[in-house]
Amino acid sequence: MSATQLYEGKAKILYTTDDPQVLRSYFKDDATAFNAQKRGQIAGKGEVNCTVATALFKVLAQAHIPSHFLSQLSPQEMLVKAVQIVPLEVVVRNIAAGSLCRQTGLPIGKKLPKPLVEFYLKDDALGDPLLTRDRIALLEIVTAEQLQTLETLALRINQALQVFFQACDITLVDFKLEFGHEAEGALVLADEISPDTCRLWDDKVSDPKDRVLDKDRFRQDLGNIAPAYQEVQRRVLAQLAQLGLA
Amino acid sequence: MSATQLYEGKAKILYTTDDPQVLRSYFKDDATAFNAQKRGQIAGKGEVNCTVATALFKVLAQAHIPSHFLSQLSPQEMLVKAVQIVPLEVVVRNIAAGSLCRQTGLPIGKKLPKPLVEFYLKDDALGDPLLTRDRIALLEIVTAEQLQTLETLALRINQALQVFFQACDITLVDFKLEFGHEAEGALVLADEISPDTCRLWDDKVSDPKDRVLDKDRFRQDLGNIAPAYQEVQRRVLAQLAQLGLA
Repeated sequence: MSATQLYEGKAKILYTTDDPQVLRSYFKDDATAFNAQKRGQIAGKGEVNCTVATALFKVLAQAHIPSHFLSQLSPQEMLVKAVQIVPLEVVVRNIAAGSLCRQTGLPIGKKLPKPLVEFYLKDDALGDPLLTRDRIALLEIVTAEQLQTLETLALRINQALQVFFQACDITLVDFKLEFGHEAEGALVLADEISPDTCRLWDDKVSDPKDRVLDKDRFRQDLGNIAPAYQEVQRRVLAQLAQLGLA
Repeated sequence: MSATQLYEGKAKILYTTDDPQVLRSYFKDDATAFNAQKRGQIAGKGEVNCTVATALFKVLAQAHIPSHFLSQLSPQEMLVKAVQIVPLEVVVRNIAAGSLCRQTGLPIGKKLPKPLVEFYLKDDALGDPLLTRDRIALLEIVTAEQLQTLETLALRINQALQVFFQACDITLVDFKLEFGHEAEGALVLADEISPDTCRLWDDKVSDPKDRVLDKDRFRQDLGNIAPAYQEVQRRVLAQLAQLGLA
């Protein structure tokens, strides 16, 4: 397979394949946080994220959510449809955490009355700023109709993932999604859903630091990062098997 | 008049009066920027801001915009209705500048296709963060109906002020408003409208630095700050006289 590196991001490298409609995504062990000001490695992260994302794309396919996922090629590699990424980070929040708390003063852990869908500009140089709907329109990133589609998809994804993670004894606190335009223009879920892009709290643990099963362990230097990622993979794969989707 | 200091802000001090429904607002010469990280004094600023705000409240009263303004008591003092301030900074933008450009990458000076009304949390400790409508609802700062009232008032104020400043050969780039609840609950314009709270560009000058007639001269160390404030006062008072409102 002749392959050209198309793009290297903070967590993945995209390669061409012989099919122009298909890309190979390689999941790196590199970890970054705070807009790449903090850098490190998490042993086995690429494999966990590729495997967990594969599982979640399968779960979401069952819920009729269109995505770029085609297949897992190897532990750290996924074949995906070539899409044009929408420069928005779509964040769904069920419980207050992270920048929402830093920016509004809401206490960490406060359950939100309903899921909150937020949009951030995917632009490292600008620090991925929060966008209002008016700013999205002003910047002409997507149309009002596409924005509505993104919000509807994000809420449906949240619904399906909450049910799935609950069965894993994990609380889905919040997560970040990216979407892409297919060649025909349809909006599909892209990127990954993994412990890098979600906040996941272990329902079996009450200590606020010990329960963290996601990249906050890296951001906040909580230790035991790789074991937490492995634990997410273990529970996700067990539940996937339970659903007959493994 | 017995007077107790009720509140000292960055630019004004509020005192009680003998009438519990009326406060006396003293306009300071103190200048702050970047969330009070930069501090200084602008000679005569208190007088200019009190006088310009008085003029603009009169102009807005003609446009049937309710405000807390009662009268100018002295060059640096205004009598205002006692209101409960809504903890939102309501910003209206006609031309891209300031944080909008820093956060979105839009070029300074880009004319917006329509006025943009934005809401920021009035909270120095949090750095006055931008709020989405969903976050305003989540924080229960105002009801959806009150938010609609604020936006409608902000756009009407913008309309009236644009016409007024145009007659002064000044472009109203953007400005910040605050509102308060009257004892009966009605929302009225409060705080001040002045070169501290607006971006004002001199239409008679084309140089991007020389045309600035507002607090950006202080923020950006452009020099000639006090003369710029005086020039705004001069033109505003001349136009007020023209309208028979002096």
